[in-house]
Amino acid sequence: MAIVLGPNRYGKAETRLLRVVRDTARHTLRDLNVSTALSGDFAAAHVDGDQAHVLPTDTQKNTVFAFARTVGVGEIEEFGTALARHFVDDVAPVTGADVRIEEYTWDRIATDGQGAGCGHDHAFTRSGREIRTTEVVVGPDGLHVVSGLKDLVLLKSTGSEFAGFLVDQLTTLPETHDRVLATALTARWTYADAAVDTGVDWAAAYAHIRAVLLDRFAEVHSLALQQSLWEMGRGVLEELPEVSSIELVAPNIHHVAADLGPFGLDNPGEVFHVTDRPYGLIEVTVQRDGEA
Amino acid sequence: MAIVLGPNRYGKAETRLLRVVRDTARHTLRDLNVSTALSGDFAAAHVDGDQAHVLPTDTQKNTVFAFARTVGVGEIEEFGTALARHFVDDVAPVTGADVRIEEYTWDRIATDGQGAGCGHDHAFTRSGREIRTTEVVVGPDGLHVVSGLKDLVLLKSTGSEFAGFLVDQLTTLPETHDRVLATALTARWTYADAAVDTGVDWAAAYAHIRAVLLDRFAEVHSLALQQSLWEMGRGVLEELPEVSSIELVAPNIHHVAADLGPFGLDNPGEVFHVTDRPYGLIEVTVQRDGEA
Amino acid sequence: MAIVLGPNRYGKAETRLLRVVRDTARHTLRDLNVSTALSGDFAAAHVDGDQAHVLPTDTQKNTVFAFARTVGVGEIEEFGTALARHFVDDVAPVTGADVRIEEYTWDRIATDGQGAGCGHDHAFTRSGREIRTTEVVVGPDGLHVVSGLKDLVLLKSTGSEFAGFLVDQLTTLPETHDRVLATALTARWTYADAAVDTGVDWAAAYAHIRAVLLDRFAEVHSLALQQSLWEMGRGVLEELPEVSSIELVAPNIHHVAADLGPFGLDNPGEVFHVTDRPYGLIEVTVQRDGEA
Amino acid sequence: MAIVLGPNRYGKAETRLLRVVRDTARHTLRDLNVSTALSGDFAAAHVDGDQAHVLPTDTQKNTVFAFARTVGVGEIEEFGTALARHFVDDVAPVTGADVRIEEYTWDRIATDGQGAGCGHDHAFTRSGREIRTTEVVVGPDGLHVVSGLKDLVLLKSTGSEFAGFLVDQLTTLPETHDRVLATALTARWTYADAAVDTGVDWAAAYAHIRAVLLDRFAEVHSLALQQSLWEMGRGVLEELPEVSSIELVAPNIHHVAADLGPFGLDNPGEVFHVTDRPYGLIEVTVQRDGEA
Repeated sequence: MAIVLGPNRYGKAETRLLRVVRDTARHTLRDLNVSTALSGDFAAAHVDGDQAHVLPTDTQKNTVFAFARTVGVGEIEEFGTALARHFVDDVAPVTGADVRIEEYTWDRIATDGQGAGCGHDHAFTRSGREIRTTEVVVGPDGLHVVSGLKDLVLLKSTGSEFAGFLVDQLTTLPETHDRVLATALTARWTYADAAVDTGVDWAAAYAHIRAVLLDRFAEVHSLALQQSLWEMGRGVLEELPEVSSIELVAPNIHHVAADLGPFGLDNPGEVFHVTDRPYGLIEVTVQRDGEA
Repeated sequence: MAIVLGPNRYGKAETRLLRVVRDTARHTLRDLNVSTALSGDFAAAHVDGDQAHVLPTDTQKNTVFAFARTVGVGEIEEFGTALARHFVDDVAPVTGADVRIEEYTWDRIATDGQGAGCGHDHAFTRSGREIRTTEVVVGPDGLHVVSGLKDLVLLKSTGSEFAGFLVDQLTTLPETHDRVLATALTARWTYADAAVDTGVDWAAAYAHIRAVLLDRFAEVHSLALQQSLWEMGRGVLEELPEVSSIELVAPNIHHVAADLGPFGLDNPGEVFHVTDRPYGLIEVTVQRDGEA
Repeated sequence: MAIVLGPNRYGKAETRLLRVVRDTARHTLRDLNVSTALSGDFAAAHVDGDQAHVLPTDTQKNTVFAFARTVGVGEIEEFGTALARHFVDDVAPVTGADVRIEEYTWDRIATDGQGAGCGHDHAFTRSGREIRTTEVVVGPDGLHVVSGLKDLVLLKSTGSEFAGFLVDQLTTLPETHDRVLATALTARWTYADAAVDTGVDWAAAYAHIRAVLLDRFAEVHSLALQQSLWEMGRGVLEELPEVSSIELVAPNIHHVAADLGPFGLDNPGEVFHVTDRPYGLIEVTVQRDGEA
Repeated sequence: MAIVLGPNRYGKAETRLLRVVRDTARHTLRDLNVSTALSGDFAAAHVDGDQAHVLPTDTQKNTVFAFARTVGVGEIEEFGTALARHFVDDVAPVTGADVRIEEYTWDRIATDGQGAGCGHDHAFTRSGREIRTTEVVVGPDGLHVVSGLKDLVLLKSTGSEFAGFLVDQLTTLPETHDRVLATALTARWTYADAAVDTGVDWAAAYAHIRAVLLDRFAEVHSLALQQSLWEMGRGVLEELPEVSSIELVAPNIHHVAADLGPFGLDNPGEVFHVTDRPYGLIEVTVQRDGEA
């Protein structure tokens, strides 16, 4: 069989952009990590070394900075769409663009004499909360948006069980009806194409989804991380008709109750050893019936 | 000259402890990373391989977990002091102990129908704010406490200059009277021994120092990061008599204005490239006159 | 539309295993990072919280350690196959298993009086070379093996060009006919199912593929990283009939020639600033005609 | 007491430099991470915001690149000395300079028809071995050189004991006469000032010290990591009169024998769980009698 070029793409990864909106003395920040990847007819670049069809990755970086000035950075889904459409519409050899953006959030520094939630006009501290993400794909079949979050670190100090599981010859884990449940959640939700076409309030949707994920994690009495994730995803789909599916990836960060018995002490769910590796890893997609 | 054993110590690093306080249905968390190091008469352990004086590092880990149950985890300075005193007082060959603790903070998950700041009884999300630290040293000359914070990420989008600097033949940096100033601050402040002896409100002092650092960073019009750090440190010493000195270590996270001139665009302080390396690094101690 | 459970799986990630083979005084090491993921009929675990079909991830970890003793750790593809087959064959609800393994290599410490390549019987230093990887998947359609490597850091100090590329209004990159080309390569190659069935010499194949990748990177005069990767992948498929396709993921680690002009100095390809972010990212699959 | 400026310094950290020596077709590489820190009369920069004495950190970066062209990069001790002397000698307000350099090593890619150890003229793969380091300090009392290495990962699969240790009420660790001993060594050795003045063969000294550390680790039957470190340090001082002291910092990377008893299996030193945290941490200085 002949040896041929298979799927390929190229781009500029992790362009770190800070956009300051300074129309008034009260500045706002957009702090982003932008990665672009282009696909199209790039066979000659590989097979013959002919770069005539290749827009340099350096230009892709320039485009991020120039668009931050001309188009501005609104919600990351908007900025990603502007970039992806540009590459496909304006660069002849490009037939597909995949733009991924991470956003880091900043809080205003509170200052004397100001009410809560007000804060300084141009001094900020990074929030350290979860990272907001999006992936905007433009291709022959149109525009698709998958947004999400990562590193949303969650913990319940009770209200979590793990029992009634399958036991084989290599099983030593005891059942528990009260354990610590913790994870660093990654979520990726797909917006329905029809909703994207008619317009989504990206910021409101993000805040709503985040609130549902937190609420379901907190309120559901957990029989397993799988069940918590299912209820979290189901809650999102119930409340947001514009979301067609959601994928949740959740490491189970094990908190092992310290064995204090050798010292004549009990441990009524108070002292835990937080472990790094290994960790459970649960991956779940919740979707509407009939979705791929 | 003979070859001899010089300074030495040993311990257990990075014991990750979660302490849940569950006296009522409303739990609280203490999430710590504890490192202990012991010094004393350990020459035989090195030179002869005789371990009779060596309390295993595994025992040091056990001690952290056992004390979390028996003593409980109050403020990290208190927990560190309990551990350090135990090793020096109760383990004969040990003459010095250095206990370092990092604390990660968690926020209660907000739930429907609850006022702001209330939140769930036992479901939490990690705040991602800066890490609180302490180092408690017990030795022949008593007890010393150096507390601090790290990874407090700060940014001003205006109100920062850098001009009038020394220029030599290798200097190409242009002066600027309006730049982005950003850092990920590490601070370590020493409590006066007399204050430690009479008692410090550790939590209140931490909150106070954090507020002063943020306020001074925000309010001082910066002519250089050095000047901002000096004013931040000076503010702490002015407001907290129990602090004898403070050391600030601050990378200058460079935000370089994107050059959009080649595209016929100006850049009035709006679009910045956030860089990783290299970075400026400023190290400053502010102290009371007469302190070492 | 009803809300339903979509694709899901769960497992234990990053079980760190050291297997010492000590049949003789001359020990050998296998230092692995093993992740397992199981799929099957786990709907009840999510929707009803019923764990009766769920083999705990803790058991999966136990299985890794037990098999390391009973089956032993040969080549990582063999160990992965044994684990994957066990989960599918012996655990009723499991219909698919995905076992991923990373291997870190160690060199014997050279000792006096020994010839090169001999070294100590039981003292080692970690090589720091690239990490060898495999992913073994067992499912309804049989067994599949995708092996690879990651973090193979490569650099050419000449013999690399980038010119004749597409120029748009946002392009500022100058052409170059002599640059530094550097990457940290990830490669993943798929073994043909027929070859897996009849038996592959995994260690020999790995060494052969690694040698071809290095040789092609070194010997091909590069007109672009895309071209180098194509030639590297093509070389592997030409020389190893048991490989059906290979995917190469290569960050372009930019080495920017320092501009010494302001100091009256030229820079004839001697002084480079190594940058972290952003970086180009090239992804290429080379395959046999007719392969998916 | 008045509040005053204490110790302070500033510089540019982590300038990543690749220097290609291309005098002939057979290139050589120096791949460095350079950090500079300057001290002197910088009170006005802090207290008054007056930067007239401050050489920008950007200039320090420029200096690294310019010196790489004009002075060239020999051994890192030489390059560090050239930089440190320049800052102190040529920049009036500077009275002290601390230059720290890390070096990453590269191997030539082996090519067909070449003998071992020959390899390609200009194609390299990063070795991944330990990182070589130096810290060169120039101040009022002259020049001092402390060189070292870090991330030298070592393991013995037998020949290591830990027994006869101190037991208190919180000790549960069993004694062992055959364990795995592993560490990721950091070493820092101080060259005697007199040796620095008369000239040291830096490359030869580095190779010699590295060989002694490896040999002693391998050959000493270990009764504790402390003893191994003492013998390693003692070996260096015995063999290299130009070294006045050596500091060794060694995490004890615990390899815990997997408990296979519940499965009816023994574990004769064959299967180990490699743990991340917590870890033992041993810090030892070996010095000549009379040294500080």
